[in-house]
Amino acid sequence: MQKHILVIPGDGIGPEVTTWGKAVLEKIAANFGHEFTFDEALMGHAGIEAIGNPLPDETLEKAKASDAILFGAIGHIKYDNDPSAKVRPEQGLLKIRKELGLYANLRPIMLFDELLDASSLKPEILKGTDILFFRELTGDVYFGEKKRSEDRNTASDLMIYSRYEVERIAIKAYEAAMLRGKKLCSVDKANVLESSRLWREVVQDIAKQYPEVETEHMFIDNAAMQLVKNPKKFDVVLTANLFGDILTDEASQIAGSMGMLASASIGDGTGFFEPIHGSAHDIAGQDKANPLASILSVALMLEISFGLKDEAKAITDAIDKTLKDGYRTGDIADANTDKTKILGTKAMGQKVLS
Amino acid sequence: MQKHILVIPGDGIGPEVTTWGKAVLEKIAANFGHEFTFDEALMGHAGIEAIGNPLPDETLEKAKASDAILFGAIGHIKYDNDPSAKVRPEQGLLKIRKELGLYANLRPIMLFDELLDASSLKPEILKGTDILFFRELTGDVYFGEKKRSEDRNTASDLMIYSRYEVERIAIKAYEAAMLRGKKLCSVDKANVLESSRLWREVVQDIAKQYPEVETEHMFIDNAAMQLVKNPKKFDVVLTANLFGDILTDEASQIAGSMGMLASASIGDGTGFFEPIHGSAHDIAGQDKANPLASILSVALMLEISFGLKDEAKAITDAIDKTLKDGYRTGDIADANTDKTKILGTKAMGQKVLS
Ligand SMILES: CC(C)[C@H](C(=O)O)[C@@H](O)C(=O)O
Ligand SMILES: CC(C)[C@H](C(=O)O)[C@@H](O)C(=O)O
Repeated sequence: MQKHILVIPGDGIGPEVTTWGKAVLEKIAANFGHEFTFDEALMGHAGIEAIGNPLPDETLEKAKASDAILFGAIGHIKYDNDPSAKVRPEQGLLKIRKELGLYANLRPIMLFDELLDASSLKPEILKGTDILFFRELTGDVYFGEKKRSEDRNTASDLMIYSRYEVERIAIKAYEAAMLRGKKLCSVDKANVLESSRLWREVVQDIAKQYPEVETEHMFIDNAAMQLVKNPKKFDVVLTANLFGDILTDEASQIAGSMGMLASASIGDGTGFFEPIHGSAHDIAGQDKANPLASILSVALMLEISFGLKDEAKAITDAIDKTLKDGYRTGDIADANTDKTKILGTKAMGQKVLS
Repeated sequence: MQKHILVIPGDGIGPEVTTWGKAVLEKIAANFGHEFTFDEALMGHAGIEAIGNPLPDETLEKAKASDAILFGAIGHIKYDNDPSAKVRPEQGLLKIRKELGLYANLRPIMLFDELLDASSLKPEILKGTDILFFRELTGDVYFGEKKRSEDRNTASDLMIYSRYEVERIAIKAYEAAMLRGKKLCSVDKANVLESSRLWREVVQDIAKQYPEVETEHMFIDNAAMQLVKNPKKFDVVLTANLFGDILTDEASQIAGSMGMLASASIGDGTGFFEPIHGSAHDIAGQDKANPLASILSVALMLEISFGLKDEAKAITDAIDKTLKDGYRTGDIADANTDKTKILGTKAMGQKVLS
């Protein structure tokens, strides 16, 4: 198979972790006889630094011309503490999601048995958890009109959804539920929000086409609670952009660490694969970042964009073995970890490769 | 002390639990020589059933005329699954919050040592957790303009904040932080939302007046994660209406159960005290509800609205003793609970009273 992959390292620990995602892709190509070609492009703070644009035109062109995109992370502390900055790294990520029509963000909560103890949740609560989140990614209050009054004393964002936006992601989520446990939980705040009431109406309509799937509607506050109380009860979770952002970060604690979670953004064209962790500037450049989420993002790419299931499995197996052998990065180590087996980014990447 | 208290039982398990809150108030009055008079009023589904209005005028008048309000719960499954209903129970609660100017909702996350094992989080993660949430309660996407297009295919809610709304709650939160651990974490999504950028600007301004307080700004997704990962790191948490709704429900798992958490809503006039749990229709009328959150709401009322610290402490001491004696309602029982000590609502209420 011939594929062209664009790597966008981005900010913070992004470059460190995508290095290993790319290395794994090269190894897979060699072992399975594929031909993967690569290009690289700038986004986020890196784009602002280089040419003053968080999403350079060149990056967008390269993105559209590629078969899949491997992305690192975005954001910089400098902008976080300056709420009045006009140009922000995150604009690059939001714009590329919109431009590529990446309306569905899939976030599987995978649980490696070896990491059961790394979580703050009790192992018996976690064991058996297997959740697939469908987060809507190109609508909601993220993209609704933003306003600031002239005196700068009032600010607003429009939380808005249209029927077709909810329909297309609901269909993807139901299709996935049919291939899994046939349970779907749609999360909204329909007791307060009009946009959530539309969301619920549409999901109720789509649900009729999937009578085999058991549908539940849950308010976001309750969902945030249930996810900690009893994560096993969830199978597919379908939700809006903002609620999905919050719930999936929360759910990362189920997998032991954000450093273990990958995501796939899909839609009209090229797929986009990234860890769910952020740019983590506090540890950037220190060889401390966990490269496993980036490597797992590559597994998602192979499976979802290229249909290469065996290749994807080879990767998760390699990670499984590395963890079984006792190797950990700092974020997933616990009191029982053999101190000599706590690895940096590079050493962990090497272990998985070998 | 002479005080007039309005009891609004509301929906679902509301009537069952407020009965015990009121009984405790009567006992406190008798033991400490106060004179508490009571009145009762309708709200929510109860108001709709009686006169077609989730907040009858009479209820609002009585509320304004009282020294404090003890509220039960709101909501009915009938409306949850009917997103097109015009009149909804929750409108009553939102309207009374607005009409009484209850802009600050205080939700203390109290941890009874006896309940450490009832949580899904590991005891060593929980131990020592003591968080006081300040949730803004009369602004945000809850009260911004709601729209539905004529063809009903597009729906929106305006997420909006003004400077003074953020200022007044920020000041309350900083004042509280000064009396506690002198740490304040403000939660927003300033990397995406304009209303959050205003929120952050204002909190940064107010922070300057409290140089002794260590201020941290955190994105909501990260906060939802940190709360599960390391709840001990939080002292005072200040956040907007929607984010506060989500985070406090999530945090209820820290206290073992939603059935243990009380909240105080304060602002321009009469204070409003309620459990953070909902109407729980699935167990309503079955003598299964945990009355402790309602009883703890009463403790908050005595302390915050009436300044009666000893009386409030008498209540938490009584709950402490009841738990130490091994008594539990179903929601806070665990594998080690003596089965004969699992009580219904009434028996638990009686135990605390005695
Ligand atoms: C960086 C930020 C804009 C982004 C988001 O909120 O979508 C991130 O948190 C994510 O979840 O991908
Ligand atoms: C019932 C509902 C409107 C309410 C809210 O979202 O504010 C509840 O969840 C709460 O937290 O008090």
